[in-house]
Amino acid sequence: MRIALGVEYDGGSYNGWQSQPDVPNVQDALQAALSGIAGEGVAVLAAGRTDTGVHALEQVVHFDTGCSRPLSAWVRGTNALLPRDIAVLWAIPVAEEFHARFSAQARSYQYVLVNRPSRVGVHHGKVGWFHTPLDVGAMREAAGHLLGRHDFSSFRSAECQAKTPVKHLQRLDIRRQGDTIIFDLTADAFLHHMVRNILGCLVYVGKGKHPPQWMKEVLEHRNRTHAAPTFAPDGLYLKRIHYDPKWNLPQLKFE
Amino acid sequence: MRIALGVEYDGGSYNGWQSQPDVPNVQDALQAALSGIAGEGVAVLAAGRTDTGVHALEQVVHFDTGCSRPLSAWVRGTNALLPRDIAVLWAIPVAEEFHARFSAQARSYQYVLVNRPSRVGVHHGKVGWFHTPLDVGAMREAAGHLLGRHDFSSFRSAECQAKTPVKHLQRLDIRRQGDTIIFDLTADAFLHHMVRNILGCLVYVGKGKHPPQWMKEVLEHRNRTHAAPTFAPDGLYLKRIHYDPKWNLPQLKFE
Repeated sequence: MRIALGVEYDGGSYNGWQSQPDVPNVQDALQAALSGIAGEGVAVLAAGRTDTGVHALEQVVHFDTGCSRPLSAWVRGTNALLPRDIAVLWAIPVAEEFHARFSAQARSYQYVLVNRPSRVGVHHGKVGWFHTPLDVGAMREAAGHLLGRHDFSSFRSAECQAKTPVKHLQRLDIRRQGDTIIFDLTADAFLHHMVRNILGCLVYVGKGKHPPQWMKEVLEHRNRTHAAPTFAPDGLYLKRIHYDPKWNLPQLKFE
Repeated sequence: MRIALGVEYDGGSYNGWQSQPDVPNVQDALQAALSGIAGEGVAVLAAGRTDTGVHALEQVVHFDTGCSRPLSAWVRGTNALLPRDIAVLWAIPVAEEFHARFSAQARSYQYVLVNRPSRVGVHHGKVGWFHTPLDVGAMREAAGHLLGRHDFSSFRSAECQAKTPVKHLQRLDIRRQGDTIIFDLTADAFLHHMVRNILGCLVYVGKGKHPPQWMKEVLEHRNRTHAAPTFAPDGLYLKRIHYDPKWNLPQLKFE
């Protein structure tokens, strides 16, 4: 039986999603809790591998198990065994054809950036910070150059394992709420560090270091060395994995 | 010279605001950082003493110092010495007659409550949680009974040191945003645990354990034993200290 789960987590205490020996990671913590409920080893597969310090508002994973438990056991039971910075949101049985990663049609990330002179305190680790005023209009114009299907090599980390650097950026919205700037990005898939590298470039434009059309030049170089430094992970949230409605996943409603 | 500061903090790692030996507290951390900038011992006085686990979006404090520093040193310099969960927002010289606590005309608190079946993960420690659906309309009706000047003894902890239990509750607004319920309270002053005790009673009404008019009965008993248990500190934020505009404090704009 295949079960899909929605999972949220604070990535601050983890070396990212992926299982690896001797360092805390979200996957191992989730697998340990699920195995406690199943009474047998459970291996999960996630839609998106988040990096160290990156959070998830709704990661989607699936796992196969021979053991039958009520859905509430996979949610409340697992939550009782998980550390407090990880929570299962929902659980649902899915067809064997469903695959958390390969069935995903698109991913949405959100970046929350506090833009004010003094550094953040109460929301440390959960928001990015930039100290001088950023021009949202200029950043929006720069963002427009990235929309569509492009070779995003300029925004790809050296460790990226994706087969192709060509991705389709469907959305890059930027809005200001008081002293906070919120970036919403959707693409079929993202390269390693792609959101944080785009953020770094947008901040360069926002602070006036480069004009908006510089973003087009960076993109066309297809070379990471022309872009700005990778921005901090603190404000980055994996927000939504998009699937065909036929899977009937009880995903959260955002906005 | 008297200096006023705006300060925000995540109360999760502290035994509240107030200085006390051998346990981490916000006041000692702030005094240590300010003393590092002043090169002499600095003692601060705060508008509101927050409890263990309670956060501040804008606490206001003042201190006296003989040493002259640019205002940026009191903000950026202090922030460089503070732990990451505390940040100075602004600093300004004030008249000797200004007193962070006694000049305050009112205080506003906000409580952020996630209302959904599964417990919180990504925002653990920063929001309260209740698992069954709460009736916001019923809670609003109950809240109406508390508005105005009353003896709030029913919502006062045994350790409360306030001279009088009579306070003027000027605002108690409740609004839902998706699966989050936000409570905004303003009073001339609050008794110890008053917001969390009011929250506990509102949740009792919201889940249907008692009708809205029960809140009036609880208030009129003037006895803590008639109220609901104290609600968790996690979602509680000291949001704003209200002062006469004559002091010209550069306070944050909320909402």
